[in-house]
Amino acid sequence: MNVKEIPLEKLNAEQYIADQVKSLKQTVGSGLAVNALSGGVDSSVVTMIGHRALGARLKTFFIANGIMREGEPEYIVKVFKKLNVKVELVHAENEFFAALKGLTDPEEKREAITQTFYKKVFGRLVKESGAKYLLQGTNWTDVEETVAGVKRQHNILAQLGIDTQAVFGYKVLEPVLQLRKTGIRMVGKALGLPEEIYARPPFPGPALAARVIGEVTRERVEVVRKATTIVEQELKGSGAFQYLAILHNDKVTGMRNGKRDFGQQIEVRCWESKDAITATVTRLPFEKLEKLAQRITTEVPGVVSVTYNVTAKPPSTIEAI
Amino acid sequence: MNVKEIPLEKLNAEQYIADQVKSLKQTVGSGLAVNALSGGVDSSVVTMIGHRALGARLKTFFIANGIMREGEPEYIVKVFKKLNVKVELVHAENEFFAALKGLTDPEEKREAITQTFYKKVFGRLVKESGAKYLLQGTNWTDVEETVAGVKRQHNILAQLGIDTQAVFGYKVLEPVLQLRKTGIRMVGKALGLPEEIYARPPFPGPALAARVIGEVTRERVEVVRKATTIVEQELKGSGAFQYLAILHNDKVTGMRNGKRDFGQQIEVRCWESKDAITATVTRLPFEKLEKLAQRITTEVPGVVSVTYNVTAKPPSTIEAI
Repeated sequence: MNVKEIPLEKLNAEQYIADQVKSLKQTVGSGLAVNALSGGVDSSVVTMIGHRALGARLKTFFIANGIMREGEPEYIVKVFKKLNVKVELVHAENEFFAALKGLTDPEEKREAITQTFYKKVFGRLVKESGAKYLLQGTNWTDVEETVAGVKRQHNILAQLGIDTQAVFGYKVLEPVLQLRKTGIRMVGKALGLPEEIYARPPFPGPALAARVIGEVTRERVEVVRKATTIVEQELKGSGAFQYLAILHNDKVTGMRNGKRDFGQQIEVRCWESKDAITATVTRLPFEKLEKLAQRITTEVPGVVSVTYNVTAKPPSTIEAI
Repeated sequence: MNVKEIPLEKLNAEQYIADQVKSLKQTVGSGLAVNALSGGVDSSVVTMIGHRALGARLKTFFIANGIMREGEPEYIVKVFKKLNVKVELVHAENEFFAALKGLTDPEEKREAITQTFYKKVFGRLVKESGAKYLLQGTNWTDVEETVAGVKRQHNILAQLGIDTQAVFGYKVLEPVLQLRKTGIRMVGKALGLPEEIYARPPFPGPALAARVIGEVTRERVEVVRKATTIVEQELKGSGAFQYLAILHNDKVTGMRNGKRDFGQQIEVRCWESKDAITATVTRLPFEKLEKLAQRITTEVPGVVSVTYNVTAKPPSTIEAI
């Protein structure tokens, strides 16, 4: 690989954007490109750079998979509408839940989401669009973790069901490849994205499904979605790098109205980190931890127990699965 | 029920002991009694009162079930030997693990331990001893929780496989029934028990099996036993009411030497409480929580993640299952 990381101290956001826009224009020429916007920082920045370079020749899809935050699809489409970027909202919730049915192994769940996203939903959209260029938000941490074996190797064309041996002309473009999260946020700000987007805490690819241990059903996603809303409300002002709620599969004993109640457990994680490669636990005040426990066990039906992760990365990871 | 609680402010430990000794002497007369010593405060106090009243006419068994703390059976036998109380150590580890094999439901596991203890092991010992009197460490919190439906109703004679309809003469004696934990500790001190026994944090009836979510195997008990040792070492000086380690069945992603490692999670709980009926979370310093996580993930093979419970009782309970 001859591409290198651009370290923060050498990053000039305006210049970086100009370079990427120029490069995309040269590569795509008068062709068509597509990309999938997830609402995260990386794909939001890619969408903005892509539209600045290609305008209407870039078609952007937002795929609603049923495993996102409360109101997320509509929110993201609206944010980009204000920036004059048209995003097509594709409802594919049923396809995702059908693929996840009965799966409990984390790798199988991840694979089901990946396959449904790429091969079934996005793959179909790419082929129908006639585009031969795909914009993707791969960043430098992804590259490193793939090399290190922490993440699985990705070949996006194969994932789209496009046989790279047989089909000529498909090209993957990665406009934020040389940056890590902080750099991407700086570029996002320079692109005019609102702070709520460019400063957004990272969110995993498999969305809330990554926060459900065990089978991912509509009901269980709803539990972790409610807990996520509370955690995000309470920890918004913490200044932490990332914070999340995980629904465990293990049940624990609780008490309701003096009676034994075998219920669910939510694990809260809150991280201090610069680049997600290593991370330490945020030393939240106990008042805040107790409030989180009190709200989650009161407002989320079925949850009787809340824990707080106290393990650094490594040996932990940011997400649970 | 015409027996009433003796509140702390009315408790005179010396007088209480004298009353119980007198009562046991009157009831048992020249008969034989047996009891099972678990090493917890309640059964230790019952053993001391029983021996003071009955001497060699009380036979005390310690049943090693394989799901206890490191070195526990030998330690307890030794403590009582110093107090001139003979305790017979019965090795029944194989019987307990055989009964637990394949079980994951907490009620079924609890039932398997109860049945193995009472019907199989202790029931056999009681019958062989020829005793008709059983001393048991039931306390006032047990009574209340049984009435409230938090704990299951216990009929010890039926549990011993003794049909109370058919057999006449068996009698259960409960010398600490009218006391809660703090009162029992005061009585234990007055009886001359060492502080490490009378001030011991409570330990659940099903021992470490109550701290294993999912199947209870020798290997999984060994994991939670190691974590328990670390938690007890680190939190001994915390002044907390109780502290414990729970092995989860859910696996979470971790990292070892830069590679993905799907491993186990330990949940630590540490409680402030007077009577175990309600409890709040001990606000441990983060330095201590991080040290616990660091030690457990380093010293206990397979564990990649440690959490700390932040939910009060209620809606949580002290133990997880």
